[in-house]
Amino acid sequence: MVAKLAQLISVAKGELPADLILANARVVNVFTGEVEPGNVAIYCDRIAGVGDYHQAREVLDLAGQYLAPGLINGHTHLESSMLDVGQYARAVVPRGTLAVVTDLHEIANVSGLKGIKYVLNSARRLPLELFLMAPSCVPATTHLETSGVCLELEDIRQMLRWKECIGLGEMMNFPGVIGGFEAVLSKLKLFQGRVVDGHAPGVSGKNLTAYIAAGISSDHESVSLAEAKEKLRQGMYVMIREGSSEKNLAALLPLVSDKTYKRCLFVVDDRSCVDLLTDGDINAVVRKAIRHGLDPVRAIQMATINTAERFRLNYLGAVAPGYLANLIVTSDLTEMQIAMAFYRGRLVARDGVPLFEAYQPGGEGLTNTVNIKPFAPQALRLPAVGETELIIEVVPGQIVTRKRAERVKVKDGAVLPDISRDILKLAVVERHKASGNIGLGLVKGFGLKRGALASSIAHDSHNIIAVGASDEDIYTAIKEVEQLQGGLVVVADGKVLASLALPIAGLLSDQPLEVVVAKLADVEKQARGLGVTLPAPLSTLSFLALPVIPELKLTDLGLVDVTEFKLVKRG
Amino acid sequence: MVAKLAQLISVAKGELPADLILANARVVNVFTGEVEPGNVAIYCDRIAGVGDYHQAREVLDLAGQYLAPGLINGHTHLESSMLDVGQYARAVVPRGTLAVVTDLHEIANVSGLKGIKYVLNSARRLPLELFLMAPSCVPATTHLETSGVCLELEDIRQMLRWKECIGLGEMMNFPGVIGGFEAVLSKLKLFQGRVVDGHAPGVSGKNLTAYIAAGISSDHESVSLAEAKEKLRQGMYVMIREGSSEKNLAALLPLVSDKTYKRCLFVVDDRSCVDLLTDGDINAVVRKAIRHGLDPVRAIQMATINTAERFRLNYLGAVAPGYLANLIVTSDLTEMQIAMAFYRGRLVARDGVPLFEAYQPGGEGLTNTVNIKPFAPQALRLPAVGETELIIEVVPGQIVTRKRAERVKVKDGAVLPDISRDILKLAVVERHKASGNIGLGLVKGFGLKRGALASSIAHDSHNIIAVGASDEDIYTAIKEVEQLQGGLVVVADGKVLASLALPIAGLLSDQPLEVVVAKLADVEKQARGLGVTLPAPLSTLSFLALPVIPELKLTDLGLVDVTEFKLVKRG
Repeated sequence: MVAKLAQLISVAKGELPADLILANARVVNVFTGEVEPGNVAIYCDRIAGVGDYHQAREVLDLAGQYLAPGLINGHTHLESSMLDVGQYARAVVPRGTLAVVTDLHEIANVSGLKGIKYVLNSARRLPLELFLMAPSCVPATTHLETSGVCLELEDIRQMLRWKECIGLGEMMNFPGVIGGFEAVLSKLKLFQGRVVDGHAPGVSGKNLTAYIAAGISSDHESVSLAEAKEKLRQGMYVMIREGSSEKNLAALLPLVSDKTYKRCLFVVDDRSCVDLLTDGDINAVVRKAIRHGLDPVRAIQMATINTAERFRLNYLGAVAPGYLANLIVTSDLTEMQIAMAFYRGRLVARDGVPLFEAYQPGGEGLTNTVNIKPFAPQALRLPAVGETELIIEVVPGQIVTRKRAERVKVKDGAVLPDISRDILKLAVVERHKASGNIGLGLVKGFGLKRGALASSIAHDSHNIIAVGASDEDIYTAIKEVEQLQGGLVVVADGKVLASLALPIAGLLSDQPLEVVVAKLADVEKQARGLGVTLPAPLSTLSFLALPVIPELKLTDLGLVDVTEFKLVKRG
Repeated sequence: MVAKLAQLISVAKGELPADLILANARVVNVFTGEVEPGNVAIYCDRIAGVGDYHQAREVLDLAGQYLAPGLINGHTHLESSMLDVGQYARAVVPRGTLAVVTDLHEIANVSGLKGIKYVLNSARRLPLELFLMAPSCVPATTHLETSGVCLELEDIRQMLRWKECIGLGEMMNFPGVIGGFEAVLSKLKLFQGRVVDGHAPGVSGKNLTAYIAAGISSDHESVSLAEAKEKLRQGMYVMIREGSSEKNLAALLPLVSDKTYKRCLFVVDDRSCVDLLTDGDINAVVRKAIRHGLDPVRAIQMATINTAERFRLNYLGAVAPGYLANLIVTSDLTEMQIAMAFYRGRLVARDGVPLFEAYQPGGEGLTNTVNIKPFAPQALRLPAVGETELIIEVVPGQIVTRKRAERVKVKDGAVLPDISRDILKLAVVERHKASGNIGLGLVKGFGLKRGALASSIAHDSHNIIAVGASDEDIYTAIKEVEQLQGGLVVVADGKVLASLALPIAGLLSDQPLEVVVAKLADVEKQARGLGVTLPAPLSTLSFLALPVIPELKLTDLGLVDVTEFKLVKRG
C-alpha cells in the first residue's frame, strides 16, 4: 500500500504505530559508510525512520543481523535468464535484487514494443522495481541480417513516454556515434538531459572522447583496468560487470578507491538461470568483490545508492526516512546470503525462497513467433567454390571469434563437415518473416563428433542458429526448434536427445525456474555426450550470429566480416 | 552558440578544429580527484575533449595554470546582495560562480511571480546559469504579519512548469511539515520525485526524521558538527554554509571525510555585496575550506560536481567531454583568485573584471512598491500599559533575539526611548497595501545615541522597519524610505545623513556594484557616527521583523513571541 504522507510523518515522529518494525538490526548506512545499530520503522511501502522505534502492528527481531538496502542491478538483459518475468523475479528477488535497470533488446528484436510492454506489465505485479532503458539499437545492424523488428525513432519516442522508461539503453552502435550518423544522433538528441548508457568495448582516445561528448555517460564493457580508468577519467560511470560469460570484476576492482568509488557500480549484463539459482545475482557480485578485498559496506554502496544516483532513481538505495522499504537482511555481510527480502514493506522472500506468486501470463501474444519458410535438408548444402573456405573459429569463454581460411573436405561439389579437424557446418535460418533466407558457413571449436545443436536464441536478431556434424541432424534440430516454437535442442542420428522449449518469443521458457535449470543442464549434458568440449555451448552458439562482435559471424544473409562490417561474398 | 552534436563529435575526434583550445592547463578532474595536464578543446558552448588537442580558431596558453569547472552556488537568495541581477552577475561571475541555485523568496514576498520572472528573464541575458528553487514559504507566516504576496499552491504549480525551476525551495515551515499540515504537505506532494531543499535549524531526533520522511533531502542550517552529522546520517545532503552573517564552515568541516564528502556541498545562503566584492562568493568558501585543511580538489568538488549531482544539473560541474564549457582558471588552487572565467565557451571575466554588459532592465514593473497609508509622527506613540515592557534584545552576530521584560521610561502615558540604557523605539510600518498597520516595540543592543535607521529590507515580508532614539527621526527616516520607494536610510535631527536607494521591490539597487558598496559603507559609517556599535546594523535590523526566528520579533501587527508563535497581547 502506498504511504499517505501525513501518516508517514506521524509514524516517523513516533506518534502512530508503524506497520512493521525490524528490531535490533545492524543497519548499513550508505551515506556514512558505517554500520549502526537500530530499529527500522516501516509504514506501508516506506521507511518511516531508523532509530528508537518500538510501537508497531508487527515487530520482527533481527537479533543483530545486517539490514541493507535492496540491491539494484544497474544493467541487465533479463531475457538472458531464459525465464519468464515472474520466474525471473523468483530467481533474483530471494537473492536480494529488488530493482533492475534493464535494456530489453532481446525481446524487442523479436516482438518490438509489444515484447517490451509484456515484460513491463508483468513486472508491475511482481515485487521488483523494473526500470527500462529504451533499447537503442534494434536491430543491431540494418544491412547484415534480417531481424524481426526495427525500432524506429518514433518507437523510441513512444517508450520515452512510459513511466518505467528512465533513459536510453546501451548505445552499441559506437561506430555510428563516432561517425556522427544522423539516424543515431537523432536518438541521442531525444534523450538530452536524461541518462544514456554506453557500450564501447575497447574504444579509447579521441574516439572515446567523441562517444562521451555525444552525451553517453556510462560503460559496462571495460575489460582492463586501463580501459576503465580512461572511461572514468573522461566522465563515465564505470559499470563493473560480472555476468555469466563476461567476468570483469577481478580486473576492474583496483579502480575502486576513496576518490573514485562513487562513480563505480556493479552490473551483471547477462546472467543465466543456472548462475542465478546456484550463485546469485548482484549479491554474488558483491560477495565476490568482498572476497577480492573490497570493504563490504562499500561493495553494498556500489550495488545500491551509487546505482540509484547514476540513474536518478528516487527513494531507492538507502535505509533512510522516506525511502521505499526495499530491504535485505543477511547474517553475514561478506557471504551475502539473503535471509530476508522486503519489497515496499512486505516480506517477499526468506532463506532463498520466494514468498510471492510468480505472475505468469505465459507469454500471451508473444508465442508462435517462429515463422520459417518450408525447406528441405538439401537447402543446407554448401556448394564449394574452391579448395579453401572461410571458417569461424570459436574462442573459448569469449564472444569474439577468429576468422580463418582453411582447406575443406569437398564431395560432389559440396563442402562437408570434417569431424577429424573439428570443422562443423553452421546454419542460420531466418525465422521472423518466412523469407527462406538461410546462411551457411563453417565453424571450428565445438568438438561435436556427431549430431547437431540448434537454438532460437541467436543475438541479436534471434533467427534459428544450428551447428552440426551432418545436414540431416541440423535439419532435424531446426525443425524441432520450429516445432517447439523456440528453444534449445540437441539431436543425434535423427533423434531429439534433449530440448528446452522457449515458447515466449523464442527466448523465454514458460516453465518454473527449477525446471528450466534442470532442462538446460540436460541439454548441456547431452551436448557433451556428443563430444562438445565448450563449457556453455548453447550460449557460445547464440553469439555466432551477432554481426557487431569481431571477427567473423554468420547471419541469415551469409558470412559477415565484422571488421569490414560487410557480408562476405560467396560463390 | 549551442553546439551541434555532429560537429561536437568531429571536434572531439580531432577532425574539425575547435573554437578555442585552453592549452597547457592543469585540469582539475572531479571524477578522479586528481589534477592532470592537458589541453581542453571547446566547441561552441561545450567542452569537446580534454587531452591532445591543438587545432583551433583560437589557442589560449594557460602556461600551467589550473583549470577547474565553473563554481556552482548551491543555495542563495541573491537579493541579499541588494544588487540588480546584472550587477549581481558582475559581482559573482568574475569570482568564478557560473551557476547559482537560488530561492527568490525575498523578491517573491514583495512582487510574487512577477518578481521571480524579472530575475529569471534578466539572468537569461547574463553569463550565469540560474536555477530556481520555487519559494515554498511566501509569506513566512500567514497570521503574524502582512506580506505583499501570498504564493498559493497554484502559483507553485505554475513555477514548476518553468524551465529554470528544478525543485522546491527551502521548506522553512518545519513545524508545518512535522505537524503534517495539509497546506504544507500539498506543496511537497507537488514535488514528489524532484529535489526539495530543507531548512531545519536545530531540528533533531524524530522531528528531523519526520521532516526528512516528507521527502526533504538537504539542509543548510546546521551550526554544529553533531547536528550536521545527524542530518547526513538520516539521508540529507549537508550544505555547508558560509554567508555574510551565518558562518558554519569551521564547525562543519570535520564532517567531510572520504566516506561522506560526496554528500556535502558549499553554499552561501546570504552574502552581501561588500563581501562579494572584497572577499568573493563560493570561491571564498573554497579558499577558506582549504585554509582549514581541506584538500583543494575536494573543496572544488564540493563547489562543483557534488552540487550538480545533488540538483541533477545536466552537463555542469566537470571539465569533461559534452559538459558545458563553464570554466575557471586560477594560478593557485589554494588562493582561488579567479584569473579567468568562461561561460559556455566565452571568456566573460579576467582578473576579477567582468567582460560582459550587465543587462539592466532597471526593475521595470517592480518599482514603486512602497505603498504606505499616510500617518503622522503621533502614530508612533507607544502607550504605556504598566511600568515594564517587553524588549527585544539583539544578540550581536546572530539573527535570533532574546525576550526581556524591563522597566521603561514613561512620560504622559507614553513609553519613551531610554538612551542611557540603550532602549530604543522600534517600528514596523506596513507598506504593501497601505493598510495603516504600524507595529511598535522596544529594542536593546543597537547603541544608537540619537537619530534613526530605517530599511525596506525586513525579512521576509519586507515592510518598513525603523529603529531610533526619537519618534521624529524615525518618522523622517520612514518617510525618506517611502520617498526613495525603498532603501536604507540614516537620519539625525530631522536630516538624512546617508541613504542607499533600493527602488527595485524595495530590495535591490539599480546602481552599479561599486556604487552600492560605497553607499552601503557610507550608511554604516553614518550609523556608527550616531553611536551604533553593531557591525552590520542594517542587516541586524532587517531580521527583527522575521517572526519565524526566536525569541521576540516585531511585525506590522505587533510584537511576536516566536516560541509561542503568536502575537503578544498589549494592554
